[in-house]
Amino acid sequence: MVELDQDYSQAGFGGSIQPGARPALLIIDFVRAYLDPECSLYAGVEEELAQAVNLLGECREAGIPVFHTCVEYDAAGVEGGVFYRKVPALANLVKGSPYCAFGEGLEPAEGEVVIVKKYPSAFFGTHLAATLSSLGVDTLLICGLTTSGCVRASAVDALQYGYIPIVVREATGDRDERPHEANLFDISKKFGEVIGIDDARRYLASL
Amino acid sequence: MVELDQDYSQAGFGGSIQPGARPALLIIDFVRAYLDPECSLYAGVEEELAQAVNLLGECREAGIPVFHTCVEYDAAGVEGGVFYRKVPALANLVKGSPYCAFGEGLEPAEGEVVIVKKYPSAFFGTHLAATLSSLGVDTLLICGLTTSGCVRASAVDALQYGYIPIVVREATGDRDERPHEANLFDISKKFGEVIGIDDARRYLASL
Amino acid sequence: MVELDQDYSQAGFGGSIQPGARPALLIIDFVRAYLDPECSLYAGVEEELAQAVNLLGECREAGIPVFHTCVEYDAAGVEGGVFYRKVPALANLVKGSPYCAFGEGLEPAEGEVVIVKKYPSAFFGTHLAATLSSLGVDTLLICGLTTSGCVRASAVDALQYGYIPIVVREATGDRDERPHEANLFDISKKFGEVIGIDDARRYLASL
Amino acid sequence: MVELDQDYSQAGFGGSIQPGARPALLIIDFVRAYLDPECSLYAGVEEELAQAVNLLGECREAGIPVFHTCVEYDAAGVEGGVFYRKVPALANLVKGSPYCAFGEGLEPAEGEVVIVKKYPSAFFGTHLAATLSSLGVDTLLICGLTTSGCVRASAVDALQYGYIPIVVREATGDRDERPHEANLFDISKKFGEVIGIDDARRYLASL
Repeated sequence: MVELDQDYSQAGFGGSIQPGARPALLIIDFVRAYLDPECSLYAGVEEELAQAVNLLGECREAGIPVFHTCVEYDAAGVEGGVFYRKVPALANLVKGSPYCAFGEGLEPAEGEVVIVKKYPSAFFGTHLAATLSSLGVDTLLICGLTTSGCVRASAVDALQYGYIPIVVREATGDRDERPHEANLFDISKKFGEVIGIDDARRYLASL
Repeated sequence: MVELDQDYSQAGFGGSIQPGARPALLIIDFVRAYLDPECSLYAGVEEELAQAVNLLGECREAGIPVFHTCVEYDAAGVEGGVFYRKVPALANLVKGSPYCAFGEGLEPAEGEVVIVKKYPSAFFGTHLAATLSSLGVDTLLICGLTTSGCVRASAVDALQYGYIPIVVREATGDRDERPHEANLFDISKKFGEVIGIDDARRYLASL
Repeated sequence: MVELDQDYSQAGFGGSIQPGARPALLIIDFVRAYLDPECSLYAGVEEELAQAVNLLGECREAGIPVFHTCVEYDAAGVEGGVFYRKVPALANLVKGSPYCAFGEGLEPAEGEVVIVKKYPSAFFGTHLAATLSSLGVDTLLICGLTTSGCVRASAVDALQYGYIPIVVREATGDRDERPHEANLFDISKKFGEVIGIDDARRYLASL
Repeated sequence: MVELDQDYSQAGFGGSIQPGARPALLIIDFVRAYLDPECSLYAGVEEELAQAVNLLGECREAGIPVFHTCVEYDAAGVEGGVFYRKVPALANLVKGSPYCAFGEGLEPAEGEVVIVKKYPSAFFGTHLAATLSSLGVDTLLICGLTTSGCVRASAVDALQYGYIPIVVREATGDRDERPHEANLFDISKKFGEVIGIDDARRYLASL
């Protein structure tokens, strides 16, 4: 898609925004529903899980704030509103289901904030923006699942709420490569930066 | 993408949500920046404009509420926050620029609400959700520009805020077919319905 | 305050808004922190509790949606942001504290939504507005604690989000009569209706 | 109200939050509707206006970001939703009315952001929070009209969105002393700091 890249650049998309001095890490919905082959939401993201565990470790070492999101609904799905009606697979995420648990190696540590969300964006209907703002965060390292769903929605909202969204490619995944790549393209051109995990590492080291 | 369709359906995506009894029309950013070949944002969407004019006419006849969005920034772009830094082309939309004007045939009529927004989503930082709610609207017919930017962000937010998003395909456009189709796919599977203008017409007639 | 009433009326405040046809009940923070004399937040609202239990019973009989809010923070209070720094008494509401439990007779029933909030308004950083909207609610019967804190903030937000706020006087309380009355005055003049529990009963019967 | 003060302090309200290093000024609704004795909203706040002009001058000298809010509705008041129905006096603020203009000496300068709002809170349905966040602001000096309406609602939201609200007493006013004082009391105990203009001056000098 070389010529698509060029077309976007000439049109004035894709300006590069520099990460700030006060980042936080946001790990989106890395829960067992996407990791267990028994679940219809299984996404085949074992490698991305391993990289997310690495990234989490580096962020803990760097001492930056860490946020974990997960999804949980009441038994009838009333809390999921129109989203729950649109995506029948969300019934896998009723409160108490083992599919709601965090992936192995991604369990929240003490002092890390868990955001229980009902919608695609980690910001929508949650206290994420207020917490980031009260902590003075300016940049959000983002990873998790899935690129075309909650990662994209959260990256767009990060930008909207005034934070610089930096998606870490290797630690972000989806059930199919095509929506994955299409959404990374959109994010990189209009909403934030998409970087490799080595660049994330260098950035953390530079703080 | 037959097999991608099947994969999503089997996984429990793409449930069909029925439109409600109290729709409104939301026309997103159909402004001259995208219609004037002199502007870098020009998207070649003349046919989509014609269809949007048709759709607006039908909605007026049906007597449903109509919302128009446009984008306007202060000269320094402070109001555009991180978005303005990310997309240099937004400098075309500084208040007072002729590029901010609505496309021909899409000028707001008396009694129609104009939402001046700063970010991709028509809901973000605007009184759209409050107005829809106070009017008892339950469904949002959505058209406009661009599919991979403000239309997608607004459709996701419509769902999140509790409205049924119905994107009208022929009246929605983008500068390139690939992001256009990729985003209609994501919307149709996870966030709302994508319908043809003839179906929109039948729906309006059924009210 | 007869002459204050008159001054406000002549100035064009206090227009009476009629309740709609699709109400929900919102019970705000009726938790043990305010009910247990051992806790510094104890507010002496035993009579209001009894009336809230009555109101809840009537709403269940009428079959309208019921929402309960409570407050819970992480051990460090990071989730409470600036609010937690401003009000040291919020340390009583760290997750796991018995003070977080609902008052006797106000335990949520199956199918009723529990909103765990971090801030004064029941709408702020929660999925309340989205759920109300997706259910087609137009009116919010409000009761709970405390008038000058979370009840006022929630009533103002109900109005802002497009819902008609109806505060039920006898089921709403505060630790001191003066802020209680001052805030009911403000609400009744600018943000919503303040009615007696008998009027609430008649309204529910009329649905 | 000495004993009320004591009661609140002993209960754990009124913790003092220190202003941060990156403040902005928010001047709320200082428009002619409240300044012209012909308008029913006239509030008799000439002295407060003079002090707001002073405060604005000091903030400009200190070089901090300045935000001005005003209110404007469409002719039918649809944009005002339930608020417009509740407060008939808002009809004075239809777009184009001379009552919408800023008070003398408070006209926005180039580079200052104007927030056109529809609801009590300066944050609700506006891009204020996003702009503050993208600028790295941590503290909001607040003044304007009226204490029991838009100032209180904005101070509560400032706290909720993660900013330290500092209301400057002499530059803030209302049509009656009783709601004015009652709301300053609530703000000072639960939502923010209320300081004198001399303290504001010292704070600005200390930056």
